Amino acid sequence: MTYTIQNTLIPTEQDYKTVDVQITDGRITAIAPDLEPVGTIIDGHDKLLLPGFVNAHTHSSEMWQRGLIPPVPLELWLAELYDFAPLDPEQIYLSAVGTAVETLLSGGTCVVDHLVLIPGKETETIEAAVQAYRAVGIRAYVAPLIQDEAMSAGLPTNSSNVTLEPFFRSTQATLDLLQEAVTRFHCPEAGINLVAAPTGVHLSTDALLTGCIELSERYDLCRHTHLLETKAQKLLSHEKYGCSAVEHLKRIGYLGSQTSLAHCVWLGNADIEILAETQSTVVHNPLSNLRLGSGIAPILKYLQAGVNVTFGCDGAASNDSQDLLEAIKIGSILHNVTDFDYRNWIAPRQAIQMASLGGATGLNAADQFGSLTVGKKADLVLYDLTSLSLLPRTDPIGLLVLGRPTQAVDSVWVNGKQIVSDGEITAVNVAQLRKELFDRSQWHSSRHSKTMYSTEARYREVMGLEPQ
Amino acid sequence: MTYTIQNTLIPTEQDYKTVDVQITDGRITAIAPDLEPVGTIIDGHDKLLLPGFVNAHTHSSEMWQRGLIPPVPLELWLAELYDFAPLDPEQIYLSAVGTAVETLLSGGTCVVDHLVLIPGKETETIEAAVQAYRAVGIRAYVAPLIQDEAMSAGLPTNSSNVTLEPFFRSTQATLDLLQEAVTRFHCPEAGINLVAAPTGVHLSTDALLTGCIELSERYDLCRHTHLLETKAQKLLSHEKYGCSAVEHLKRIGYLGSQTSLAHCVWLGNADIEILAETQSTVVHNPLSNLRLGSGIAPILKYLQAGVNVTFGCDGAASNDSQDLLEAIKIGSILHNVTDFDYRNWIAPRQAIQMASLGGATGLNAADQFGSLTVGKKADLVLYDLTSLSLLPRTDPIGLLVLGRPTQAVDSVWVNGKQIVSDGEITAVNVAQLRKELFDRSQWHSSRHSKTMYSTEARYREVMGLEPQ
Repeated sequence: MTYTIQNTLIPTEQDYKTVDVQITDGRITAIAPDLEPVGTIIDGHDKLLLPGFVNAHTHSSEMWQRGLIPPVPLELWLAELYDFAPLDPEQIYLSAVGTAVETLLSGGTCVVDHLVLIPGKETETIEAAVQAYRAVGIRAYVAPLIQDEAMSAGLPTNSSNVTLEPFFRSTQATLDLLQEAVTRFHCPEAGINLVAAPTGVHLSTDALLTGCIELSERYDLCRHTHLLETKAQKLLSHEKYGCSAVEHLKRIGYLGSQTSLAHCVWLGNADIEILAETQSTVVHNPLSNLRLGSGIAPILKYLQAGVNVTFGCDGAASNDSQDLLEAIKIGSILHNVTDFDYRNWIAPRQAIQMASLGGATGLNAADQFGSLTVGKKADLVLYDLTSLSLLPRTDPIGLLVLGRPTQAVDSVWVNGKQIVSDGEITAVNVAQLRKELFDRSQWHSSRHSKTMYSTEARYREVMGLEPQ
Repeated sequence: MTYTIQNTLIPTEQDYKTVDVQITDGRITAIAPDLEPVGTIIDGHDKLLLPGFVNAHTHSSEMWQRGLIPPVPLELWLAELYDFAPLDPEQIYLSAVGTAVETLLSGGTCVVDHLVLIPGKETETIEAAVQAYRAVGIRAYVAPLIQDEAMSAGLPTNSSNVTLEPFFRSTQATLDLLQEAVTRFHCPEAGINLVAAPTGVHLSTDALLTGCIELSERYDLCRHTHLLETKAQKLLSHEKYGCSAVEHLKRIGYLGSQTSLAHCVWLGNADIEILAETQSTVVHNPLSNLRLGSGIAPILKYLQAGVNVTFGCDGAASNDSQDLLEAIKIGSILHNVTDFDYRNWIAPRQAIQMASLGGATGLNAADQFGSLTVGKKADLVLYDLTSLSLLPRTDPIGLLVLGRPTQAVDSVWVNGKQIVSDGEITAVNVAQLRKELFDRSQWHSSRHSKTMYSTEARYREVMGLEPQ
């Protein structure tokens, strides 16, 4: 399939220019003014073409609980989330489609789904998500969320004796299910990649972490994990390892250019040096970090240290959306209040680069996609610059990043295949999706989470908050 | 004109219920299940009805510069803004229409426009904005932005000798033009209110401030001003008054239940007590406070002290949007990182109340609008709960506040008149607006602001930043 996008605006080093862009067999084959038109002609007039962004950390099935969990910190929020997690692979399919749709319509062409698995239906869960992403056509990194310690192990003990129940699945059985999923579903050329992705050091034994390293090396997979999202996790890491979680991950060999780390809120300067030195990637999830009160990640310090940083929406129960442009906006401007010297602030063009090339780099694929470069895979987004939200005409990238674009995405290509056209998803019926989501849910304003209730007293105690 | 909105969801104290709502002669006349239908019937099925929000602080003409000014602090940003401020009343009209449209489509029914005046065309500027708001039908508080000190007076001197040029218009001439505007345009029953609104203490003499108090008392106007948005303004206030700006405003009688104060980032505990005691309102502009690196306003402290707080988008060159739901979301979740005790965090229902009744309270009009109450003016917004962004069905208010609603506003009434229907503005042609905004602008990525350039060295010096 060949396309020529004619007369589209693209960014240059400092400005913009109007060019034609040709796509053949999934790759960008030419970028220049006034090319000989070949294949299907797409009118790029009054439109801006950018490389697609990566939604570099999310949990698709949280969509079923968005808007519902009250404002509480991660450890209590997780308790409620898991009390009501969806248990039906059809729901997994629908929420993965919804996540893909919202990501595409906010400039994303790739999603990293740290996928919560239904106990006892782990492979069906992974299969449902893979089917959803193949149906929509978005590039997907499916990262089954695995752990081998019980949720209650995720809080620091504060030197008190806490008896932890064992996790219901053994370490080896967990690694086996990941290996089976890789064998069945990992297919980079079709745009589906499996990822080795333990929940985090706070819920994993070293056996699980090193097992993930081995699998990732054997099958050339990316590695992903949550890292120091909350103060509680920082306290716990020091209890567990006698050092920071970053030092521990470095020691066991988890870090590297194939490793992306979600959140990274509670790192110190020595940790930052380690991330830079190991070429690991930080996935910034500014909205969930605010929503859960986790803190403001030291993103300007990461950038100054040369750490690769990209953006994620995080799951829709802690955001509660999958709008990547929103994450990019807040993930840029939030840090202006952390440094009086505005010369260190993130400019819109830098934010776009972090979201596209930074995202590809975090997936060890910067040579494959993430920029408007001849030879790279055509993962592209065409924005309609006549949308009211992008008017008057000023700096298109400034409007995209600092504004609040609505109905701005006109077309999207992934692997050279057009999957959004005239603002509409081409391969799935969004009206039908809405009907399914509507029919399988009901309005309510509250519910009683037993686990949150039973966790709260311990949480308040170990975090030094006034007793209930 | 009489309407009956049938079978709409409305919030109760803790939950939701389905009711009919009747509107007659601009006011809510009945709210109950299964009312006898009268007048035009509106289908409220699968929709949520809420009181309209107040966009309690913006500067409409900044729309011409949105997306364009680089990430720099307020004092440098202002220098560039004024170098390129629009000079044509037709532009003022168009950007006021645009501001009204974006406010309505994000749940607002009322806008406080702290309107930058074209020098020499002050009355024409005000007239253009008034005409725009009357054309769209939104409730408007037009607050001509007045000052009687030159922009260069807005920086602390740091004890160095700075020669300030006088402002081009005298204090009395400034007060006269405000008075003329009140006489010509102030018409609360038609939904147009003039407001006495000096830029801020940092650019006003006491003569201007007390002149504004007198005019507001004579004509029963609200008062509005910027207050301690930046650290520079805090330093300047102490230089100028030998006390905090809040103490000074209290002393001269500016504060009170008719007074709303934009930003309020740099207040101390004693200042907060004064705001509570005088029943003044804080207008929280979270997005511009981040964008300009001004800081995080201590909103949780205001709420704990009993200060009324509401939300504003601020002008579209410092945000760079006019999406009120975005300001409400970020203005709620941002503060979770300022207090480890989640019991002090803002819940979605509280945020909605701050945006509606809190907004009306800040305009001294809580008895007139701001809640679903029989007898109040019908300033109402009906949300389509089948929008993808509000699915699956969970807690509708949670989805509205914590999510990222798009195309969610179905209908809007102001003063009982329907001005949005089926997601479309009824009284103005938005396609034509887009065309006008498009034709009067051009894409570019940068421009040279002489004043920003000449201000920067002094700014860096007084703020203790490394020299250029």
